[in-house]
Amino acid sequence: MFSNIKIILVQASHPGNIGAVMRAMETMGLDELLLVAPKQYNHPDVTSMASNATKVVEKVTVVETLTDALEGSEIVIGTSARFRSISLPKLSARECGTLCLKNKHKNIAILFGSERTGLTNEQLMCCSKQVYIPTSDHYSVLNLAMAVQVICYEIKMASLQEQLNSSINQTVSLAEYQEIHSFYLHLEKVLNKMVFFHSNEPKKLMLKLRRLFNRVNLEKSEINILRGILNYIDKYEH
Amino acid sequence: MFSNIKIILVQASHPGNIGAVMRAMETMGLDELLLVAPKQYNHPDVTSMASNATKVVEKVTVVETLTDALEGSEIVIGTSARFRSISLPKLSARECGTLCLKNKHKNIAILFGSERTGLTNEQLMCCSKQVYIPTSDHYSVLNLAMAVQVICYEIKMASLQEQLNSSINQTVSLAEYQEIHSFYLHLEKVLNKMVFFHSNEPKKLMLKLRRLFNRVNLEKSEINILRGILNYIDKYEH
Repeated sequence: MFSNIKIILVQASHPGNIGAVMRAMETMGLDELLLVAPKQYNHPDVTSMASNATKVVEKVTVVETLTDALEGSEIVIGTSARFRSISLPKLSARECGTLCLKNKHKNIAILFGSERTGLTNEQLMCCSKQVYIPTSDHYSVLNLAMAVQVICYEIKMASLQEQLNSSINQTVSLAEYQEIHSFYLHLEKVLNKMVFFHSNEPKKLMLKLRRLFNRVNLEKSEINILRGILNYIDKYEH
Repeated sequence: MFSNIKIILVQASHPGNIGAVMRAMETMGLDELLLVAPKQYNHPDVTSMASNATKVVEKVTVVETLTDALEGSEIVIGTSARFRSISLPKLSARECGTLCLKNKHKNIAILFGSERTGLTNEQLMCCSKQVYIPTSDHYSVLNLAMAVQVICYEIKMASLQEQLNSSINQTVSLAEYQEIHSFYLHLEKVLNKMVFFHSNEPKKLMLKLRRLFNRVNLEKSEINILRGILNYIDKYEH
């Protein structure tokens, strides 16, 4: 899953963080990790912090330069809490999750800088977008592995949301303009008969109801239920 | 901020994790941490991993028992990835964020178990709700501090969302849970009387209508209009 998304750590210093990143990724179903010139990599802290992240540990690749790491990437997203001079389009972690899901057929790279400095301006210049994690104003610097956890969590959440939407919408077809228009006419006709309605500025109430139903994207089957109810009330009036 | 929310670590084993939790909390603006019988606490890993989480470090409290930690708590939420025999209402991390924001005037405690075992059944029995973090099916166990990071991140995100809504809706007030709940009861009562409704699998129709109205984020004034209509139909029946 998410085989089109690479997580790239640029010059990570602490082997414990590398292991923690591996675990963070695997819990969210991501397994493509690239390490660009890590300070230390063969270190017991990597495996102890990685815990049971077997897939990521098996597949991890170490490269010398960021250019090597970015080969074949079509969308490159740099994580940074700082809003610097380089003006890249900014995404929140949540928006980044959605973007990743909307681009399943593209190779996406998400870059994380070193613990001490984050991504440098030069490294950010390789990116087409910048992602930030919303934080407290007072203290905005997440630990490296924590930042990877949040970004990967939002990718997982976006994919769950997509599954939910597609299972809900499998049999759903949205109502067309004419159906909605007829529903409003019907609604207005029925409401006009109601004493309740007369005493409450009918035009204003009808506008408020249209505003409500306009927000919903009514489905055909919902229009049918609502019109069924209106027919029922309508009959009562005779 | 979030001064009504306590994070409680029950019998945490690794001082590094305690420090990492401190930093995770402070980056999201939470600063009330309670440690119940930590295995090791005066250890350099706590301060090194806490980094600049000065507020949490200053305010942290160590207590002997979970009962001490829960004193004064009104909503107690236990984090657990396992869906055990104890049947507590389940919340996702995102729903937990929303719940925390909706209960600003209540004392909320969020419990995290030890690294090795998570919360025991006995500890979960002190909780009124269970929160889980959606993960990969294949590997679902986040590191303790990572789990705290995700939960605190969702609380922060819920508060940002609330700020955004309130700036958009300055003149609009959304209906509260109880108002929506009463509206559904009223709707169901009125629909149950309708022949139309009886002939169309009432439970299924009611579910479809709830799904429709749940999508809208009903405003107070809209609930009033809808209930006015329901009252009107209701009177007709007598």
